Amino acid sequence: MTEFSLGLTGDINDIMNAHNLAMVALNARMQHEANYTDAELAKRGLRRLDIDPKNVEMGWVLDFAAQGLRNIMIGIGGKKDGFLMQSKFGIAVGSELMAILAVAKDLADMRERFKHIVVGYDRTGKRVTTSDLEVDGAMTAWMRNTINPTLCSTVEGQPCFVHAGPFANIAIGQSSIIADRIGLKCFDYHVTESGFAADIGFEKFWNVKARLGGLKPNVSVLVATVRALKMHGGGPTVVPGRCENMVHLINVIKKSGIKPVVCINAFYTDTPAEHALVKRIAEQAGARAAVSEHWLKGGDGALDLADAVMDACKEEVDFKFLYPLEMPLRQRVEKIAKEVYGADGVDWAPLAEEKAKKFEADPLYADYSTMMVKSHLSLSHEPTWKGVPKGWRLPIRDVLVYGGAKFLCPMAGAISLMPGTSSDPAYRRIDVDVKTGKVSGLF
Amino acid sequence: MTEFSLGLTGDINDIMNAHNLAMVALNARMQHEANYTDAELAKRGLRRLDIDPKNVEMGWVLDFAAQGLRNIMIGIGGKKDGFLMQSKFGIAVGSELMAILAVAKDLADMRERFKHIVVGYDRTGKRVTTSDLEVDGAMTAWMRNTINPTLCSTVEGQPCFVHAGPFANIAIGQSSIIADRIGLKCFDYHVTESGFAADIGFEKFWNVKARLGGLKPNVSVLVATVRALKMHGGGPTVVPGRCENMVHLINVIKKSGIKPVVCINAFYTDTPAEHALVKRIAEQAGARAAVSEHWLKGGDGALDLADAVMDACKEEVDFKFLYPLEMPLRQRVEKIAKEVYGADGVDWAPLAEEKAKKFEADPLYADYSTMMVKSHLSLSHEPTWKGVPKGWRLPIRDVLVYGGAKFLCPMAGAISLMPGTSSDPAYRRIDVDVKTGKVSGLF
Amino acid sequence: MTEFSLGLTGDINDIMNAHNLAMVALNARMQHEANYTDAELAKRGLRRLDIDPKNVEMGWVLDFAAQGLRNIMIGIGGKKDGFLMQSKFGIAVGSELMAILAVAKDLADMRERFKHIVVGYDRTGKRVTTSDLEVDGAMTAWMRNTINPTLCSTVEGQPCFVHAGPFANIAIGQSSIIADRIGLKCFDYHVTESGFAADIGFEKFWNVKARLGGLKPNVSVLVATVRALKMHGGGPTVVPGRCENMVHLINVIKKSGIKPVVCINAFYTDTPAEHALVKRIAEQAGARAAVSEHWLKGGDGALDLADAVMDACKEEVDFKFLYPLEMPLRQRVEKIAKEVYGADGVDWAPLAEEKAKKFEADPLYADYSTMMVKSHLSLSHEPTWKGVPKGWRLPIRDVLVYGGAKFLCPMAGAISLMPGTSSDPAYRRIDVDVKTGKVSGLF
Amino acid sequence: MTEFSLGLTGDINDIMNAHNLAMVALNARMQHEANYTDAELAKRGLRRLDIDPKNVEMGWVLDFAAQGLRNIMIGIGGKKDGFLMQSKFGIAVGSELMAILAVAKDLADMRERFKHIVVGYDRTGKRVTTSDLEVDGAMTAWMRNTINPTLCSTVEGQPCFVHAGPFANIAIGQSSIIADRIGLKCFDYHVTESGFAADIGFEKFWNVKARLGGLKPNVSVLVATVRALKMHGGGPTVVPGRCENMVHLINVIKKSGIKPVVCINAFYTDTPAEHALVKRIAEQAGARAAVSEHWLKGGDGALDLADAVMDACKEEVDFKFLYPLEMPLRQRVEKIAKEVYGADGVDWAPLAEEKAKKFEADPLYADYSTMMVKSHLSLSHEPTWKGVPKGWRLPIRDVLVYGGAKFLCPMAGAISLMPGTSSDPAYRRIDVDVKTGKVSGLF
Repeated sequence: MTEFSLGLTGDINDIMNAHNLAMVALNARMQHEANYTDAELAKRGLRRLDIDPKNVEMGWVLDFAAQGLRNIMIGIGGKKDGFLMQSKFGIAVGSELMAILAVAKDLADMRERFKHIVVGYDRTGKRVTTSDLEVDGAMTAWMRNTINPTLCSTVEGQPCFVHAGPFANIAIGQSSIIADRIGLKCFDYHVTESGFAADIGFEKFWNVKARLGGLKPNVSVLVATVRALKMHGGGPTVVPGRCENMVHLINVIKKSGIKPVVCINAFYTDTPAEHALVKRIAEQAGARAAVSEHWLKGGDGALDLADAVMDACKEEVDFKFLYPLEMPLRQRVEKIAKEVYGADGVDWAPLAEEKAKKFEADPLYADYSTMMVKSHLSLSHEPTWKGVPKGWRLPIRDVLVYGGAKFLCPMAGAISLMPGTSSDPAYRRIDVDVKTGKVSGLF
Repeated sequence: MTEFSLGLTGDINDIMNAHNLAMVALNARMQHEANYTDAELAKRGLRRLDIDPKNVEMGWVLDFAAQGLRNIMIGIGGKKDGFLMQSKFGIAVGSELMAILAVAKDLADMRERFKHIVVGYDRTGKRVTTSDLEVDGAMTAWMRNTINPTLCSTVEGQPCFVHAGPFANIAIGQSSIIADRIGLKCFDYHVTESGFAADIGFEKFWNVKARLGGLKPNVSVLVATVRALKMHGGGPTVVPGRCENMVHLINVIKKSGIKPVVCINAFYTDTPAEHALVKRIAEQAGARAAVSEHWLKGGDGALDLADAVMDACKEEVDFKFLYPLEMPLRQRVEKIAKEVYGADGVDWAPLAEEKAKKFEADPLYADYSTMMVKSHLSLSHEPTWKGVPKGWRLPIRDVLVYGGAKFLCPMAGAISLMPGTSSDPAYRRIDVDVKTGKVSGLF
Repeated sequence: MTEFSLGLTGDINDIMNAHNLAMVALNARMQHEANYTDAELAKRGLRRLDIDPKNVEMGWVLDFAAQGLRNIMIGIGGKKDGFLMQSKFGIAVGSELMAILAVAKDLADMRERFKHIVVGYDRTGKRVTTSDLEVDGAMTAWMRNTINPTLCSTVEGQPCFVHAGPFANIAIGQSSIIADRIGLKCFDYHVTESGFAADIGFEKFWNVKARLGGLKPNVSVLVATVRALKMHGGGPTVVPGRCENMVHLINVIKKSGIKPVVCINAFYTDTPAEHALVKRIAEQAGARAAVSEHWLKGGDGALDLADAVMDACKEEVDFKFLYPLEMPLRQRVEKIAKEVYGADGVDWAPLAEEKAKKFEADPLYADYSTMMVKSHLSLSHEPTWKGVPKGWRLPIRDVLVYGGAKFLCPMAGAISLMPGTSSDPAYRRIDVDVKTGKVSGLF
Repeated sequence: MTEFSLGLTGDINDIMNAHNLAMVALNARMQHEANYTDAELAKRGLRRLDIDPKNVEMGWVLDFAAQGLRNIMIGIGGKKDGFLMQSKFGIAVGSELMAILAVAKDLADMRERFKHIVVGYDRTGKRVTTSDLEVDGAMTAWMRNTINPTLCSTVEGQPCFVHAGPFANIAIGQSSIIADRIGLKCFDYHVTESGFAADIGFEKFWNVKARLGGLKPNVSVLVATVRALKMHGGGPTVVPGRCENMVHLINVIKKSGIKPVVCINAFYTDTPAEHALVKRIAEQAGARAAVSEHWLKGGDGALDLADAVMDACKEEVDFKFLYPLEMPLRQRVEKIAKEVYGADGVDWAPLAEEKAKKFEADPLYADYSTMMVKSHLSLSHEPTWKGVPKGWRLPIRDVLVYGGAKFLCPMAGAISLMPGTSSDPAYRRIDVDVKTGKVSGLF
């Protein structure tokens, strides 16, 4: 199963289009309010929302890594050419609509959530939402079909649901709660995926998704490759002291009360000695571990792992969250930074701290989840710091508000919601055989 | 059959995504060329294209009427935030990719055309294309499935193909040549649609599509409603002298040698006297005419019309183009303006004339089609001039280059490739019944 | 006397600073209105002006030819970083304040005019002026000393006033009315300068300055050089039929009833035969003419010219304006275009025509002067059309409003109020001898 | 003597114009390099500088507090409308040219420094200077006269020089070295002014100006007002423990070896007891102190202060800099932050630290002065922290390079080189009596 769990292009396009519809409505509304008097607005059944152009929360999305669209200026030109304002594009998977898809209970819940997406603030600082723009119904209409999980089958014929969003660094990065519920009803064991590494994927599964879904997991499978351990260990061989990143993540999982199982994802370049060493270190850290050759042998290669997981499922689980919902935002972030990332503390940029204080003081945000936005390439915010970095503090530069998903999203370090295209992008190698229609260069 | 012939959301999204991929590649390439030396570029297998940021031809597309995106500034920020440049968004149906879909013979032809889309020009004025960006293969891959027409059925069960592009004002506005060819192979009669009024839809069918497809049509059905004739006649009743717009269009069709048939599209508010009057005027102008009640009665209501069409098909056709391909661009536009729109002549803005001269002098453009961009709300460029405007000249403000479709597109008047959202947009009334999932407010 | 009649740097800087103060006030006011509620504004003694950011009339000025500042975007950043809007810079001599300096009667008149400078319009289309911004007093304070003409002496000791503005292409281009009045009181003959060629400099002297100053001139001296006549004649020698540009301008002067005197400004490369030919042609056209060698010999070289001027002054003058003030704007421009420039007519861009109609209908503009903005390098708007161009129409793309000077300024062709710096600018050659402090490279 | 030591409008305008000339040259050069090939450039005697538009150091200046010009976009439009880039305006007193004026030894030194002003960097990171733009000579020409100090007289007839730049928060904030040298030659005692508070004005006098001028000062007069001490003490009365800000600054001065003298600047609302208390505290801290009534009584009121200063001048001075030139940039800033401002340390933003490392590694910057940019309203970077703030770190967000002045300028906190206009600016109250020409509302 590919990382991009939204396999059907139609679905991500639905998210993109429904999301951008809100932005079209926002800019058009700002233009019309600028061009019309109160009386002229009233004639059209509109009241003046008086949106502050320098306090807009929402941006546009495209499903590309397009750094050129990160910071843009729109509405340039005459009075009919839209409202002049700074704006931004993010990648579609990072849309709040993807988060809503992942956490919504059903269509009614999704419809309700679509009312409360915060597009910006008015001059007095009051939230302006998608329902103020009267665009929440149309957005739901566009997303109506996406709420149904797509039932796929693996190449070996096992059933699996593909439903909602990858990229736990900038997004929720979890398969949907709806798909999990169906899975739990239909089968003895239900396996769900959390994107990227355990410091972000598992932390959001643990404190956001499990809490919202009311589900109690038994086991967490941590996938380890010898190659990754080498990279995080800083050198070309795996040595006992160099698996500290894996050990750190095993300990994170143990804090939740869930049983950790390390899946040693075998590559053909690995040696049995390396596998044995990793297994021993994982077990010493308190985890089960199994070598899995699914890449080479499919399901048959994963039988040992399956045994380890089923064995772990038999254990009692004392599942507990990292923090109670009552904990104020900045304390939550401090706890995540210290206990999950291994930071010494958190440094808030002035703007971010100002926002955080406002959210802590406002009962509207009391039951909001905390969804971290952080690099997946390091336990820290700095992608080049490998292993288990020591003696650093987590910088928070901003906090985004997802009013429909009910998320507050602290932004750590320089990470952007719109990734960049490298100077050697994959599209250079993709082509089509015009005789057969076959696409080449995707892998 | 709805006006929006691209019924499947997936298709227009494929066009949008494939199109925007070129823009992502363009801006990323410009950024990388700005940040890297020739040697660093060479290491990545890239040569410096040296694209002129003030001479970029292509813009982004979204499938919305978003006036706020007409004129934008992108790449604001630091060196990793893309290349700073003026840019623009158009509506997705107006994409050159839609035009290519409509005129491509097959996948190989589409693949070839995707090489030559002009994204901009280098510092010396030389064209930079999608193949220079090495993105033409990936664009084709994204569009691979769209080349197959979608076979739909009407509510009465007749087969119809839905394939390619509406909006003959800003786009090609024709059903695809591929779909026509299949239709012609399968059935006795093949009916294809041209968007909007005969001055733009039929003119493009006649001089662009029929020429490119090598097809010889027999009959052109002109759809007339009493309501439209009233509007173009300037008042609340249809009187003899007021059907001049219809008569003008009948005469346009006659110039092509194709036989005109007027379909009087009956509405429940029309009177038999009105129908009779319109029929008489049409026949006096040299057309067959039939009242069609398909809106009320379905296929049964259109039997008279079908008889008239079949009858017309029996006549000899002396099909001839309005202008030969050898005619230079400005003469072609002059001919279209005078003979189809009824203008006294053409006024070229300095920029547009400079471009036109360049194209006329360059053999590269010798076999390019001329695809007018003009309002569909008037025979002229000015939407409010109804009937058959007299004593006016057609202003051409720019000429776009579609190197893959091989179109030169003169832009008449103030028309924009990105329409605007009104102050009372339809999305305000769209909603979903969360119990049934039914969408309301679409019509 | 140099072309730059504002010899004292201090003066042009005062104009620049006083002008830009209005722009500072404008943007700051827009920011504060965006950030404060009505009540908060009232506390500061401010009412909401509600300026339309897409309908701002005024731009900034700098005393440079800086094409990079023609079209700018300002106020980018956070809420304290000003109001985001499109803006523009012009060259300081083109400032409305320069025009006011040239036409003001005295300090009280200047103070009054500074109240009415139009900075922009509110949402309902009402003018917003410098007095609405409460910045008119401070602007006057900054300009207080500039109202006094600077009395200079020529290198031969004759007194001359240097007061107000060059560049009749983009500005008023006349020495001030105040300086003229002093000159007329003190001396037997008063000579005043009009910038650039007679089609713009003289036309503004005739219909704008003479009307506003209530002065009746006797003679107009037209300066001709053999070099310029060659250029306008299209070749390297002066031949009879090639002085048509000079003849055209003599005829323009004759329409005003003022007596024309041609000053043949002798250069050392000219031949006596050339001088004689020009003299004969000028006289045949109905002008006096004299060869003047002031460049070589100073005042002594201009004695013949002085005699010719004094002789002309003895004639009766039947001074009459080209058009009465009652003539509507578009008719005035048509008259100037045809009778002064030799055009076949005027083409108004839609925006410009819309504005012109508004001004014609509004009694507020009834006594406004018409100040053309047009290239000085041709009788037409197109700098490369030399001699007396035939068969062309004058395109007007915009009309500027100078509410303090009471000017409506039609903009002809592509001319910009901010010239550009060439690729070989004079500053490359300017330097200072650090021992003597002497500046080199100015000429 | 007013705080604005550049009393003559002409002078600051010269700085503004000479400064902006460099920006005109920069943008025009970038445009021409974009539009011309290497061969075309060579024909004009130009080599390609290849300036990186996203790494431009220099901005424009105006002599206004114009927040709307802080962050701008210029060069919008066609190919002739300049080079599109992000740019910025600062206030003219903060210009590097003002700094050069303050530290230049003579015209030759100024000419030399004008060669090295860094306008930006090329694609490879190499500095591009005013001499690369060939604009350094013209800039010197414009500034030629400003190098001569203006000799003014006080209202009591004492001579004083007014020469160079106020605002020690964002600029050098010192009277010029040239004026000091003249003063030292002419009189027994020479008093020079440092702008704003001792933490910035004195620190720059001490470590920048005295070092560059090779001058050894004897005494530093610290001006204290009861009102300011109250404000920094946090309440309405002056009490012993509340003069800690003054005591802190006395201690700063003592670190330099210069003798501190406190001038208690008497106001009519002060009580003798308050004066006595401040005097006692100052003396306990090791300073001389005298009450001065110069505001009320002119020079006579300052006799006690003069005695104290003359008395202090007799003492031996062991003048030493806070840091040697050999100390690397970041250590210097750390030392200033801790020993002068009382910070716990320094936090470098990633961008600033990256720059600092580069400067430390490059011998080009070995003899550069360190000129801090910091709020004058607090010892810290945060204007609202009064008294002697404890437990804080100094954030450095950027480091500017002044290649002509040879300054590296660390930017502390949110301070901007372009201040803002408040919502109740002074210009609202300024006016001119049109009968007398008198200006009112300036004070």
